[in-house]
Amino acid sequence: MKIVHIGATGTLGSAVVTELAPRHEIIQVGHQRGQLQVDITNSDSIKTLFERIGKVDAIIATTGNLHFGPLTQMTAEQFRIGLNSKLLGQVDLALIGQHYLNDAGSITLTSGIVANQPIRLGANASAVNSAIEGFVLGAAIELARGIRINVVSPTILEESMGIYGDFFAGFEAVPARRAALAFRRSVEGAQTGQVYQVV
Amino acid sequence: MKIVHIGATGTLGSAVVTELAPRHEIIQVGHQRGQLQVDITNSDSIKTLFERIGKVDAIIATTGNLHFGPLTQMTAEQFRIGLNSKLLGQVDLALIGQHYLNDAGSITLTSGIVANQPIRLGANASAVNSAIEGFVLGAAIELARGIRINVVSPTILEESMGIYGDFFAGFEAVPARRAALAFRRSVEGAQTGQVYQVV
Ligand SMILES: NC(=O)c1ccc[n+]([C@@H]2O[C@H](COP(=O)([O-])OP(=O)(O)OC[C@H]3O[C@@H](n4cnc5c(N)ncnc54)[C@H](OP(=O)(O)O)[C@@H]3O)[C@@H](O)[C@H]2O)c1
Ligand SMILES: NC(=O)c1ccc[n+]([C@@H]2O[C@H](COP(=O)([O-])OP(=O)(O)OC[C@H]3O[C@@H](n4cnc5c(N)ncnc54)[C@H](OP(=O)(O)O)[C@@H]3O)[C@@H](O)[C@H]2O)c1
Repeated sequence: MKIVHIGATGTLGSAVVTELAPRHEIIQVGHQRGQLQVDITNSDSIKTLFERIGKVDAIIATTGNLHFGPLTQMTAEQFRIGLNSKLLGQVDLALIGQHYLNDAGSITLTSGIVANQPIRLGANASAVNSAIEGFVLGAAIELARGIRINVVSPTILEESMGIYGDFFAGFEAVPARRAALAFRRSVEGAQTGQVYQVV
Repeated sequence: MKIVHIGATGTLGSAVVTELAPRHEIIQVGHQRGQLQVDITNSDSIKTLFERIGKVDAIIATTGNLHFGPLTQMTAEQFRIGLNSKLLGQVDLALIGQHYLNDAGSITLTSGIVANQPIRLGANASAVNSAIEGFVLGAAIELARGIRINVVSPTILEESMGIYGDFFAGFEAVPARRAALAFRRSVEGAQTGQVYQVV
C-alpha cells in the first residue's frame, strides 16, 4: 500500500514506520523533519500536502500537542492548545484526507490512555483523547467507498518515560514497537470504528 | 443551595429548573432570555457573570451548540462550532466557575447519547460529547476543596423529537423531567467523575 504518515519522525511514529516499512511504501511527514512537512493546525497546509502526494491507500497520524497543567489554574486559552493541535489537527487530516483515499482505504489516528485513566495535570489530555475516540466512532458509520477509520490508544511508551514518566507514576509502560502493532492491525485489518488500546 | 444554571431557559434546562426549584435558589441564566445573560464562548462574559453572582454551591450547564452535517463534506471550520460552543463553553464555565464555588460545591455539565451511539451527521456531536465526558473524568481527580464534577448524558428528549427526531430513528426518547432527575442526583448526591446516562 501507499501510506502517508503524519508524525512519522516522532517517538511513536518512527516505531510505526519500522513496523510497516517492510511491506508498504510510506511517505514520512513531519513538521520540521521527514520527507515532507505539514502543519496539522492549518487546513491549507494539509490540502497542499495531499495535492502534492495524490491518492493513497492509508493515512496514519501519530501527532498533536496537548496542554498539561493544573486544573485549578487552567484557562480556556491553554485548553485550546489540545483542541487546535491534537484534536482538530487529526480530525482535519481525516476530513481532508478522506477525499484523497482510494476505495477501501483507511485512516488511523492516535489518542492515549489518559482518555480513560486520568492523571494529574491531564484534564486537557483526557478531553482531547476522548474526543478523538468519539470522532472515530461517529466518522466510521459515515465514511464513503468502504473507507475505514480507527484510533490507537497507547499507554505511556517506554521511550518517553524520561520525559513523561513522572506524570504516569505506577503505569506500566509499553515499548513503542508494541503500539506500532496496533497501527498495522488497523491498516492491514478490516475493522472500523475501533479503539485499539495498547496497555 | 444557591445554584447558577446556565442554559436554564432551554428545553432541557427548564425541566431541570422545575425539578430543583422547590428545594434550591436557582439563578436562571440564558443567552438572550433568563434572569441573567452570558455568552459561554467568551471567557470575559463568564467572568462578568460570576463576579456579579458571587459564591455559589452548584454550577449547572445545559447549553452549547453542535454542528450536524455530513462527514463527507465537513470542514474544520464547521467542526470548530461544537469545539468552541458546547465543549470549550462548558469547560470554561467549569474552569472559571471552580473559583466561585463554595467548598464541597458541584459542577454538572451536559453531553448526550451520541457520545456512545453515533448517528449520521453526528461526527462533531460524538467528538464533543465524548470530550466533555473525558474532561469530567480528568477534572474530577484534580478539583480542590471537595468540589465535585459530573456530566449528564441524555438520549433524545421527547420534547425535542419534533426538531431532531429524524436524526434519531428508532431511539427511545425520554421526557426532559427524567433527564432532570440526573441533574438532581449530581447536585444533591456525593459522587464525582460520573457520567449519568439517561436512556
Ligand atoms: N509518547 C508517548 O508515550 C505517547 C503515549 C500515548 C499517546 N501518545 C501520542 O502519540 C502522538 C505522538 O507522540 P510522540 O511522543 O511520538 O511525539 P513526538 O516524538 O513529539 O513526535 C511528534 C510528531 O508530530 C510531528 N508534529 C509536531 N507538530 C506538528 C504539526 N503542527 N503538524 C504536523 N506534524 C507535527 C513531529 O514532526 P517533527 O519531528 O518534524 O517535529 C513528529 O513527527 C501524540 O499525539 C501523543 O499524545 C504518545
Ligand atoms: N434536546 C435534546 O433532545 C438533547 C438531548 C441530549 C443532549 N442535549 C444537550 O442539552 C443541551 C441543551 O439542549 P436543549 O435542547 O435544551 O437546547 P435549547 O432548548 O436550544 O436551549 C439552549 C440553552 O442554552 C442557552 N444558550 C444558547 N447559546 C448560548 C451561549 N452562547 N451562551 C450561554 N447560553 C447559551 C439558551 O439561552 P436562550 O434561551 O437565552 O437562547 C438556552 O438556555 C445541549 O448541550 C444539547 O446538546 C439535548
